[in-house]
Amino acid sequence: MEIREKICTGLKLIKEKSPLIHHITNYVTVNDCANIVLAIGGSPVMADDSAEVTEMVGFASALVLNIGTLNTRTIESMLIAGLKAKELGVPVILDPVGVGATKLRTDTADKLIRELKPEVIRGNMSEIKVLAGLEAAIKGVDSLADEHGSSVVAKKLAIELGSIIAITGKTDVVSDGSQVCLIDNGHRILGDVTGTGCMTTSLVGTFCGATKDYYTAAVAGIISMGLAGEIAHASLRHGEGIGTFRARLFDSIYNLTPEILAKEGKLNYE
Amino acid sequence: MEIREKICTGLKLIKEKSPLIHHITNYVTVNDCANIVLAIGGSPVMADDSAEVTEMVGFASALVLNIGTLNTRTIESMLIAGLKAKELGVPVILDPVGVGATKLRTDTADKLIRELKPEVIRGNMSEIKVLAGLEAAIKGVDSLADEHGSSVVAKKLAIELGSIIAITGKTDVVSDGSQVCLIDNGHRILGDVTGTGCMTTSLVGTFCGATKDYYTAAVAGIISMGLAGEIAHASLRHGEGIGTFRARLFDSIYNLTPEILAKEGKLNYE
Amino acid sequence: MEIREKICTGLKLIKEKSPLIHHITNYVTVNDCANIVLAIGGSPVMADDSAEVTEMVGFASALVLNIGTLNTRTIESMLIAGLKAKELGVPVILDPVGVGATKLRTDTADKLIRELKPEVIRGNMSEIKVLAGLEAAIKGVDSLADEHGSSVVAKKLAIELGSIIAITGKTDVVSDGSQVCLIDNGHRILGDVTGTGCMTTSLVGTFCGATKDYYTAAVAGIISMGLAGEIAHASLRHGEGIGTFRARLFDSIYNLTPEILAKEGKLNYE
Repeated sequence: MEIREKICTGLKLIKEKSPLIHHITNYVTVNDCANIVLAIGGSPVMADDSAEVTEMVGFASALVLNIGTLNTRTIESMLIAGLKAKELGVPVILDPVGVGATKLRTDTADKLIRELKPEVIRGNMSEIKVLAGLEAAIKGVDSLADEHGSSVVAKKLAIELGSIIAITGKTDVVSDGSQVCLIDNGHRILGDVTGTGCMTTSLVGTFCGATKDYYTAAVAGIISMGLAGEIAHASLRHGEGIGTFRARLFDSIYNLTPEILAKEGKLNYE
Repeated sequence: MEIREKICTGLKLIKEKSPLIHHITNYVTVNDCANIVLAIGGSPVMADDSAEVTEMVGFASALVLNIGTLNTRTIESMLIAGLKAKELGVPVILDPVGVGATKLRTDTADKLIRELKPEVIRGNMSEIKVLAGLEAAIKGVDSLADEHGSSVVAKKLAIELGSIIAITGKTDVVSDGSQVCLIDNGHRILGDVTGTGCMTTSLVGTFCGATKDYYTAAVAGIISMGLAGEIAHASLRHGEGIGTFRARLFDSIYNLTPEILAKEGKLNYE
Repeated sequence: MEIREKICTGLKLIKEKSPLIHHITNYVTVNDCANIVLAIGGSPVMADDSAEVTEMVGFASALVLNIGTLNTRTIESMLIAGLKAKELGVPVILDPVGVGATKLRTDTADKLIRELKPEVIRGNMSEIKVLAGLEAAIKGVDSLADEHGSSVVAKKLAIELGSIIAITGKTDVVSDGSQVCLIDNGHRILGDVTGTGCMTTSLVGTFCGATKDYYTAAVAGIISMGLAGEIAHASLRHGEGIGTFRARLFDSIYNLTPEILAKEGKLNYE
């Protein structure tokens, strides 16, 4: 089956199954993550107490871990939930927000990767470079790295970690260590709204919850956000900006059909 | 006074008094809860540290407890705040989000009900069935239970717990153990947005903060959200979805008048 | 340079530098604060664990502390981050949300002011009166105080604390102890949306991150929000309310130009 067809099937499966996506995530964009999962057809649940994450992950089809606002309590919960997910065969999707900016973030990402071997890791180039042990200019949690060599980095790191690596930027790159897919959807304005990275990870998680083909899931999640960004931006009129754009972004994901998703994806793959 | 008239009065009183509604709630939908209270004319305050909840509840006209993202720290705060509320005669409104999904949620809901005897408990059918000791299919925090027998369950549980029970679903049911009110407002799209349940509870809380008639308050809060959902959905144009719907939901609550609320409510009562 | 010119320059500098604004803030309006910083051209980062705030503040151009939902863990982080900020010459902007409502808030605000001597303190009249040791009617976190004598209070407190004092209300007042600026932008509907106060503080923080002239920064941040409120309100059509208004508020900040900001500011200064 060609990848466009697989992406199409992926979205159909989400709409059919409404997979439950358990998140342990940051409090900045948590509401956006819940709404984006609902918009695409999944079912979000946020639970982060160590006393309940094991049970909750037992109902889940995927586990999204996002280190945007870490603390000692939630780090422990991420590990407990992640280990249970691995035991149950529930895919773990990691968003290493701001890794490299602080020791806490770097140590936590390293630990989560080592102990959980996430099925998918999605970050910007700065974050992925840190995970790959390369130098990268980190300024808070924003990416300043250029896109050059993204596919080399993604492929290399995917082999090294045994995880699918998804790097989002001007051109997005996904690799499982053998395949590489470049995606050219999206719009610059997505960077002007908080949480578009986190939401992309949640969309990847939702696709992972509907299909065992996590490589396709990562590609599909990224295209979904990129395409929704294009549609939302194209709808803006004079005087409108990121407030209206945000609302339309959810609208666009909500109205995305499997056919449009597969057809409008700007993919290049090896 | 007929119930429609009481509902009308309830909203007038909110607009006049702007009651302060103290929330200890989850971090997923907390912003939505604050804005919905403001939209209808109340005044929200969110404070969850055990060191300050006693004082804060002293200013409040109602206390909303929502167990959507529990942890040890906030459970303790809910109990402290709740006991103070009981002492002061401030009504307690409980939203047992996801009860039955995990032991932590079930134990916490049980404890809060036993120790605080909330004036109103609002949940979906799955959640209320768990509280009633009935079997229910729980999938994370979403309701999968059918609506059959809702009014029997609501009435029975209201008598058993001495609380007003409000079950939201396709048809909503409110009972205080003797009266039963069925409400047929709302739209299916409300289930596609996170926080519409939590916001309904906050609206119920706001009505409880304005009138001592908590049964009417529960009915009024539920109609408000249902009606706003209908109005917001009716306004959607081609290409719009949950992003625009959410904005319009707040618009619709903001523009709700006592007259419209009383007139458009689809009520059946015994 | 006249103040209008300085304001104009301030916004230009934000657009050029995209200063990183580190927030330790409440979980109610944190998403709004992140998006408003992005909307005006800054770069927000939220990090509140004591293990990482020292490093994060090292990347930041300003530190915003907001006590809206305090707890023991974040109070400690605010102090650690604040002391590091002072050491590095990073300006500290304090939003004493609800000070006076509870002992925890009053004690924390007092401690933060005493130990950190914030460059700017922004609150409503009730909050500032508490800091000034004057009586004020406090009802939760909402302001009930009248505006009379605002400039006297602002000036007096600015001298006493050595901080720039910004009081927002119908007429906003900013003083550094010698200068006083009155601002008449804004619209009453801003009070019907949660987080407009917090966002104003974040805007002040973003201006402080772009210029060392913190007095102008405080004035510019307040005008920005007031002006955006006016523009957003003027755009509302029949049936629209705070949901649409909120989206337009972000739109308006996003589209604000240095020229409009300087030109449309309704300023009176001594």
